[in-house]
Amino acid sequence: MAQGTFYVVGVGPGDPELITLRAAKILHAAPVVAYFCKQDSMGHARRIAQAHIAPTTQEMRLAYPFTTEVSVKDPVYQTRMTAFYEQCAQDLAAVLEQGRDVALLCEGDPFLYGSAMYLFDRLHTRFETVVVPGISAMSGCWSQSALPMTHGDDVLCVLPATMPEQDLVRWLEKADAAVVMKIGRNMPKLRTALERAGRLPEALYVERGTQVEARSLPVAEHEGPAPYFSLVLVPGRKGVR
Amino acid sequence: MAQGTFYVVGVGPGDPELITLRAAKILHAAPVVAYFCKQDSMGHARRIAQAHIAPTTQEMRLAYPFTTEVSVKDPVYQTRMTAFYEQCAQDLAAVLEQGRDVALLCEGDPFLYGSAMYLFDRLHTRFETVVVPGISAMSGCWSQSALPMTHGDDVLCVLPATMPEQDLVRWLEKADAAVVMKIGRNMPKLRTALERAGRLPEALYVERGTQVEARSLPVAEHEGPAPYFSLVLVPGRKGVR
Repeated sequence: MAQGTFYVVGVGPGDPELITLRAAKILHAAPVVAYFCKQDSMGHARRIAQAHIAPTTQEMRLAYPFTTEVSVKDPVYQTRMTAFYEQCAQDLAAVLEQGRDVALLCEGDPFLYGSAMYLFDRLHTRFETVVVPGISAMSGCWSQSALPMTHGDDVLCVLPATMPEQDLVRWLEKADAAVVMKIGRNMPKLRTALERAGRLPEALYVERGTQVEARSLPVAEHEGPAPYFSLVLVPGRKGVR
Repeated sequence: MAQGTFYVVGVGPGDPELITLRAAKILHAAPVVAYFCKQDSMGHARRIAQAHIAPTTQEMRLAYPFTTEVSVKDPVYQTRMTAFYEQCAQDLAAVLEQGRDVALLCEGDPFLYGSAMYLFDRLHTRFETVVVPGISAMSGCWSQSALPMTHGDDVLCVLPATMPEQDLVRWLEKADAAVVMKIGRNMPKLRTALERAGRLPEALYVERGTQVEARSLPVAEHEGPAPYFSLVLVPGRKGVR
């Protein structure tokens, strides 16, 4: 019996209209749809894809064992997350081996910091795999904010705010344009780093970009921590031609 | 009389199915569609959007005065390109002032190295402007190549190959993952820089990603220059969890 195809499908940053025609077509045809979610919620990717999932589609919830309750630095985090991804891969493999296609939904773009990569890494050598790119969170945010990012020969750096402050400062000094992800509790550190690098005046904070509750404001005016779905945009330097 | 709305619409990297639902909806409704192209060709963005443009839609070709015939370093290049963008902006403004919406098509994502930014910069303060993100060339390429780019806390750098070799080496040494754009005649220099930075073994060359004629191969096996629609992907270092 032929095996199913594993589709890794980017569904974009939040606005359901920012799904591609290709993703919509695959979701309409897929007998099984899988997606990551928290224990007690529907999952962001699943909500974005709502209009394209038929009532008869089989759904596989891949519920993270925890989100922020265990620190990333705790060795338990790595061990339990690895076991979780292993289990997810086994569950998807069982369906694919029955000859049924599975579409794994991914927020944003699957290969830009997506959990989907941990399943791709485990399954793509065993099953025919198709990856469908999605609009990334950063593209959604800079478009909605009407903030042109890179002109001409600008260098763009995508930085996780988890790195030490001194490293952030160095990157922000060197980059022409920058996107900072994984902000959360790192917001005060990031703000200081932007200030030290001389990039605070142009830095824009965007929260839940392209979603209904989206908001943005200069980092200089932002106070307190930031939710998971937030990032900071520092536009490039080369400007108008 | 109310002015028209200026839509800046990303149409993705080449595969017509990688247009978003939002972009398709706007193109179907737009009375006027504008796009950049070479003097003697239809234009890449126009070709991608073909299925969504009605025969009755008014089309505005914005034909570059030159492409590779004048060097970027020649002062004539800057002068003539600035005059060209000025004229394009005036032409679009004239239509918008008549109360008609204009959709400007952009390959990839409009705010990531797009010519569209030069018209956005000139028009967005005068007219209501909506920017619709698109799948970037790099997302299209790494998805088609099944190459996960950034895991965990990887730093991603997007670099133009136009910079001096020594600068390329430094960036490639520091970055976890890198995308190199604007390759063309810079391919031999880039190859040397990848080698010096120790990143040649994992560097992948992708030509016309997501288009019908797409091909990819390791940079180490590539010879000669590269066409405009090509880039090099260096995946991140953090790997499987």
